[in-house]
This record gives sequence, structure tokens and C-alpha cells, in this order.
Amino acid sequence: MTAYTATVTVRLKRGVLDPEAETTQQALERLGFELGDLRSADRFEIDLDADDETAAADRAGEMAERLLANPTIHDYDVAVEPRE
Amino acid sequence: MTAYTATVTVRLKRGVLDPEAETTQQALERLGFELGDLRSADRFEIDLDADDETAAADRAGEMAERLLANPTIHDYDVAVEPRE
Repeated sequence: MTAYTATVTVRLKRGVLDPEAETTQQALERLGFELGDLRSADRFEIDLDADDETAAADRAGEMAERLLANPTIHDYDVAVEPRE
Repeated sequence: MTAYTATVTVRLKRGVLDPEAETTQQALERLGFELGDLRSADRFEIDLDADDETAAADRAGEMAERLLANPTIHDYDVAVEPRE
């Protein structure tokens, strides 16, 4: 077993309204920043032990499917790296 | 001016309690997943135009300082890449 950190990024699908991101963007603009667009996402960093990187990514993907993401409105991606 | 996407990741400093992450971890364990630790972070993807990558990163860093992160409890990092 090797120690890995899996990073699951959960973002809203294109077309799903994101009022929080919109408010953040407006607040930045009110502060004088110029920006084209702002999207927000949730990021989960999960420490786990697995036989190899594929097994770790599979497990993190299953966590996303079952709990972290709502497939109706979210897309997610998984990145895995070894942990010291 | 070139189009960039700056990604600002805002996470709680070590030692700051994160009840949401704790609840998520417990829910995953209740579903039968084994994991060592789970940390959550907010990720902002910001489209902006700037003269070069350094200018884009500086501007995104300033947004983090002034609005996206609370320096008392948050650390943040900024990554910039060109946008097509």
C-alpha cells in the first residue's frame, strides 16, 4: 500500500446558475478589478492508502460519484499524487 | 494583452477547524470508504486579460488578498495559464 493524496475538483456544469460566483465577480468589479468571468469550484484533498495510483483514482472517483458531486448539476475531475 | 485564466485556491490554515470537511469525511466513512484525512478548499477560476503571466498572477493575488481569502484563517495560492 502506498500513501496518496487524491484531489477531487467539483464544479457546476456549464449552464447551471452560480449566484455565489456572480456575487463574487460583482464585488471584485466594485473594488476596481477588471475580469472577464469568474467560476467557483469545490476542491477536496483526500489522503488515502491504495495499491497504486489507478486504485487511488478509482476510489476517489467513487467518492465523488456517491457523495461529493451531484451528477445532475456537477462535473468533477480527480488528480492523484503520491504523498510523502 | 493576452487572455489568461488564473486559478486561486483558498484553503484554511493548518490548525483552523473545518467542521464541513469533518462531516464530509465522516459521511464517506459511513459509506464504507477508508481515508486518512480530508481537507476542503475553495477554487476560483478567473478569466482576465493582462500583459503577461506575471501581471495576471499579481492581479489574481491582489484579488485574493482583498476579497477571496481572509488572511487570518486562509492560505491561498495562484496559478496562471493562457486561455484559448
